Amino acid sequence: MIGMPLLSSLAGDAEIAALFAPQAEIEALVRFEIALADAEAEAGLIERDAAAAIATALASFRPDLAALAAGLARDGVVVPDLVRQLREAVDEPHRARVHLGATSQDAIDTALMLRLATLIPLVEARLAGLRARLDEMSADQGDHALMAQTRMQAALPFTVAAKLRTWASPLDGHAARLAALREGLAIQLGGPIGDGSSFGGKAGAVRAALARHLGLADAEPWQSDRTRILDVAQALALVTGTLGKLGQDLALMAQTGIGTVTLTGSGGSSAMAHKQNPVGAEVLVALARFNAGMMGTLHQSMIHENERSGAAWTLEWMVLPPMAEAVGAALRHAAALLDGAVIGCPA
Amino acid sequence: MIGMPLLSSLAGDAEIAALFAPQAEIEALVRFEIALADAEAEAGLIERDAAAAIATALASFRPDLAALAAGLARDGVVVPDLVRQLREAVDEPHRARVHLGATSQDAIDTALMLRLATLIPLVEARLAGLRARLDEMSADQGDHALMAQTRMQAALPFTVAAKLRTWASPLDGHAARLAALREGLAIQLGGPIGDGSSFGGKAGAVRAALARHLGLADAEPWQSDRTRILDVAQALALVTGTLGKLGQDLALMAQTGIGTVTLTGSGGSSAMAHKQNPVGAEVLVALARFNAGMMGTLHQSMIHENERSGAAWTLEWMVLPPMAEAVGAALRHAAALLDGAVIGCPA
Amino acid sequence: MIGMPLLSSLAGDAEIAALFAPQAEIEALVRFEIALADAEAEAGLIERDAAAAIATALASFRPDLAALAAGLARDGVVVPDLVRQLREAVDEPHRARVHLGATSQDAIDTALMLRLATLIPLVEARLAGLRARLDEMSADQGDHALMAQTRMQAALPFTVAAKLRTWASPLDGHAARLAALREGLAIQLGGPIGDGSSFGGKAGAVRAALARHLGLADAEPWQSDRTRILDVAQALALVTGTLGKLGQDLALMAQTGIGTVTLTGSGGSSAMAHKQNPVGAEVLVALARFNAGMMGTLHQSMIHENERSGAAWTLEWMVLPPMAEAVGAALRHAAALLDGAVIGCPA
Amino acid sequence: MIGMPLLSSLAGDAEIAALFAPQAEIEALVRFEIALADAEAEAGLIERDAAAAIATALASFRPDLAALAAGLARDGVVVPDLVRQLREAVDEPHRARVHLGATSQDAIDTALMLRLATLIPLVEARLAGLRARLDEMSADQGDHALMAQTRMQAALPFTVAAKLRTWASPLDGHAARLAALREGLAIQLGGPIGDGSSFGGKAGAVRAALARHLGLADAEPWQSDRTRILDVAQALALVTGTLGKLGQDLALMAQTGIGTVTLTGSGGSSAMAHKQNPVGAEVLVALARFNAGMMGTLHQSMIHENERSGAAWTLEWMVLPPMAEAVGAALRHAAALLDGAVIGCPA
Repeated sequence: MIGMPLLSSLAGDAEIAALFAPQAEIEALVRFEIALADAEAEAGLIERDAAAAIATALASFRPDLAALAAGLARDGVVVPDLVRQLREAVDEPHRARVHLGATSQDAIDTALMLRLATLIPLVEARLAGLRARLDEMSADQGDHALMAQTRMQAALPFTVAAKLRTWASPLDGHAARLAALREGLAIQLGGPIGDGSSFGGKAGAVRAALARHLGLADAEPWQSDRTRILDVAQALALVTGTLGKLGQDLALMAQTGIGTVTLTGSGGSSAMAHKQNPVGAEVLVALARFNAGMMGTLHQSMIHENERSGAAWTLEWMVLPPMAEAVGAALRHAAALLDGAVIGCPA
Repeated sequence: MIGMPLLSSLAGDAEIAALFAPQAEIEALVRFEIALADAEAEAGLIERDAAAAIATALASFRPDLAALAAGLARDGVVVPDLVRQLREAVDEPHRARVHLGATSQDAIDTALMLRLATLIPLVEARLAGLRARLDEMSADQGDHALMAQTRMQAALPFTVAAKLRTWASPLDGHAARLAALREGLAIQLGGPIGDGSSFGGKAGAVRAALARHLGLADAEPWQSDRTRILDVAQALALVTGTLGKLGQDLALMAQTGIGTVTLTGSGGSSAMAHKQNPVGAEVLVALARFNAGMMGTLHQSMIHENERSGAAWTLEWMVLPPMAEAVGAALRHAAALLDGAVIGCPA
Repeated sequence: MIGMPLLSSLAGDAEIAALFAPQAEIEALVRFEIALADAEAEAGLIERDAAAAIATALASFRPDLAALAAGLARDGVVVPDLVRQLREAVDEPHRARVHLGATSQDAIDTALMLRLATLIPLVEARLAGLRARLDEMSADQGDHALMAQTRMQAALPFTVAAKLRTWASPLDGHAARLAALREGLAIQLGGPIGDGSSFGGKAGAVRAALARHLGLADAEPWQSDRTRILDVAQALALVTGTLGKLGQDLALMAQTGIGTVTLTGSGGSSAMAHKQNPVGAEVLVALARFNAGMMGTLHQSMIHENERSGAAWTLEWMVLPPMAEAVGAALRHAAALLDGAVIGCPA
Repeated sequence: MIGMPLLSSLAGDAEIAALFAPQAEIEALVRFEIALADAEAEAGLIERDAAAAIATALASFRPDLAALAAGLARDGVVVPDLVRQLREAVDEPHRARVHLGATSQDAIDTALMLRLATLIPLVEARLAGLRARLDEMSADQGDHALMAQTRMQAALPFTVAAKLRTWASPLDGHAARLAALREGLAIQLGGPIGDGSSFGGKAGAVRAALARHLGLADAEPWQSDRTRILDVAQALALVTGTLGKLGQDLALMAQTGIGTVTLTGSGGSSAMAHKQNPVGAEVLVALARFNAGMMGTLHQSMIHENERSGAAWTLEWMVLPPMAEAVGAALRHAAALLDGAVIGCPA
């Protein structure tokens, strides 16, 4: 769903795009609000009845999407209007207990973490599939001979197994990184100015319970420190970077006159029927260069003014979802390229 | 429609997104193919009957979108499958006359120019509205006193008229730049390898007629030289850059304790009812930083391998539409911010 | 002189680095101050004697570089300490006439334009040399046969002349762009807050005279509008972009097994004596990607807070000189690569 | 020493620049070659006499810098000429034992790691000093009252201690990250094509010994996987990012009319004697935005063609040293800004 919609069939990923679609975002926000009420009840900040009423009412909440969009356009964040709608859905005397002590950023940042908690395993699973294919290729074709290329020139012969290791080894590192990131995904809960003072002296207890309810890690408020977001982005850009390298290698090996890889399912040309274009390999390069640039853009959001920067925060929202979708597209193209690929010559 | 769909109400622009939606893209491609047939008939390359049959058949063409998306995913470009569908829509013996001598890039690049020919006037019109508002403010509030700020410190007093000139002057330059770009938007027609040799010695005549039919400028083939794309992007990034500067200025002036601007329609907070957040001003900054980063990413596509680079070309498709949409969002926010804004103090 | 000093022999350019060295910068600043005094005398703002005394004294000015560096570190800009030193060099009663009405940014921005007025012709001259070599190659080898490559695959045969046109044509455009930029290089003179009010009602006359004395164009103050800087940067990034494309093409053509170009003076390997590495071609790609990224970084400086942003301005100083030096290095490598290069096969 | 030399007093760092100066680079390369010979002797690959002769001869090696620079310009890497010079310095019959089995990239990448092994502790030490100052401020001023600011508007009062935590907490995370990176800095040794086959079946033993001799970690060859470089760069960009946020906060707090921080040693203006500019704070923002952009540029080097990409590798050399120097400058400015700074009002 990046940029041009037609393009999404090439450079997008429907499964990952769905994680950032309105329904998924609102579901995650509602999940945050229910878990917050539960956590606040557990910490003795609100009545158990209030938490129960909130959980019941919000379980069947149906958002007014047009009002939410208008609220987002007005308030710069969807939470104020969503909280208004959620409170309307809850019977008195519990309405004011919805979102108690929290601020928009608590909801948005935690809801992002919930989506990342779905995204990362999805990326890990596709990476595992790709790694399995690389192992399979190594078993089947590992002893094929291949000419190593340095600085765009033939260097010395080596084996396909050695070549495959140069792709597999960084992917193993990225998989380990993703697993560590997944374990560390943490709630954000700091209240309006991030110091927890809006939780009646019980911020620590509310945070611990909230984290437990949501299956995320507990953490001190991080609202104006975006390191966590940038580490997720680093992982995403490294995955597309390594797959871009793999794509560049395949495109170079598939060149007419080189021909050290045979790819199945290459693309056709509107003008030259004889051509078999290594489309997936090229798209991998494009996705890697896209995410590389996005990474630099996202780093600008580290300069987060004071206790909350609308400018820096909005920039994150524009950058992180396309990066995630590019990773999904890259993993799909890499899998398709390697499916049936034969590298080098039998010894 | 950038990234997160909910976000599009804040950082997207529906009118501009529509220019890059499937329907608009396919319409532009079909328009190219009809005009190409006309131009080739005019140049004597194909029969007038063929061109007439193509024009008639394609006028009522209804694409099979699913097949197009699959074709794009397979071929890396939508044109091969589109041409297949278009040829099916044309009766024999004229089918082979569709897309004759042309290549995918001719169709895609020219169709992009057709959309830019709609985009640029739209941006110009919104810019003109903004400029009129600045003039109106200058007439109404120009003699208000204001403290100039240099290096984030009060410097010396000046007038609101002088301040408004610092916003208006670069916008005037951008408007002139956009007008010049609009005049220069040119067809791309070079055939499979960009040298025009596929047009039976009549490439020049076909190009001239094609340009005339489409209301674009004629130009030598530029398929592997992306300067034209980067100049459009430069204009887009300059517009968001200047509006980002305007937004930053407004956010600084609207600070509690500074208060040298009064904005209407500021945003609310989910936790602090007393706050009036200068949401539009912050979003202007975010959009400017986004387009700045995108500009650097797009420049990577200048390294266009040989006669056509799938990697560099795909990267353009991922970057240019979001940049255009960011411009639309920025112009909308700037207009809303200045509507009713009062700067400085009556003398 | 970019980054690692040893690297400057590969990726730097001594002639262009010299334009940004302390001596050249101070000379340009002093030239500005002399011309400003002359212009102010001409406009009747200061006495002719004062201007004459300033011109005489500053002609033999020798800066205290250590004090300038300390002043720059303290004030964020070198001008306050430089003006202090310049005033000390001028006898009373004329001291206070040095820098009268001007601000640091007037001096720095105009002195940058003076260096660009040397840089651009230097780039133009090297570009002209490269273009002459391309014409020579076209005359000598233009009818050689070459296989066009699209999407990293052999497409159809064409001629070396057609190939050379794809490099020459964008370079011609860039040369025209540089010539236009050169004509438009303009003084900056606005005084402390950019509105010209510090020139006693004679700002227009002072500006016109200053521009004439310095051989630059006159212009309204542009201190908080950095479009001019970004257009120079665009030209620089387009030159490295096109040369990066040329380098990428050469590296692809020089591959073992493709071999459609013969390059002289390729580089050696520390481990493989048989290798001839197309070093210059690779460096062209690196320089292009560097400048592409720098362009995106520089665009961030459009968000120039209020009447002067130290943050945005400092960022420019860090980015533009390395971009210029990269252009110089790229032109040198491109010339060396094409010197003796033979492309394609005699028909 | 970034870009404009005068600028280095503001945006550069002499101590860090020295790590990337020719002398330091050559020393590190020579250290690699001595340790390699030792390791190869230990592994039984070369004679102990050869290693001893190499160690003795290279201990007093004096490079011909002009020849090295010419070699770098020709070969794209300094190692071939350096190895030539080193071999000349060693008596026969041991000459050929210098650099045995190794390739340029082994030497360059390992020598970079040696410099990073000096850089990182230096950054850690400066960070520790900054953290100590933040703790001191928290002890002295922690109970001062301060108005929290969200979305550029006054939000609610909190304490200076809470504010200082928002700066200190990410810096603690960065310090832990740097310590982990320092532990992980690893040799690169893979031979010409990266598979270790040039070490006569003893690659593993040579690597282990080399790592031990150099005080670096052992690692499988990583020549075409640049993740390690990007993780170092991520740490650098995060440090400048957090310090850029600190600088932005200080600049906002120091504004005329806000005045919630008192800074000592602010900069002067050439035109307005009354101004105290928060120069260091602005430079922190510039350095952060510079490194953010550089990070995106560096990510492009992940697309490392085949077994060694001259283009991607050269790009790293252009980007990483300026990033390191920007970190040094940022730490210096941050320390100077906080020295004597007083935030908020005594309760």
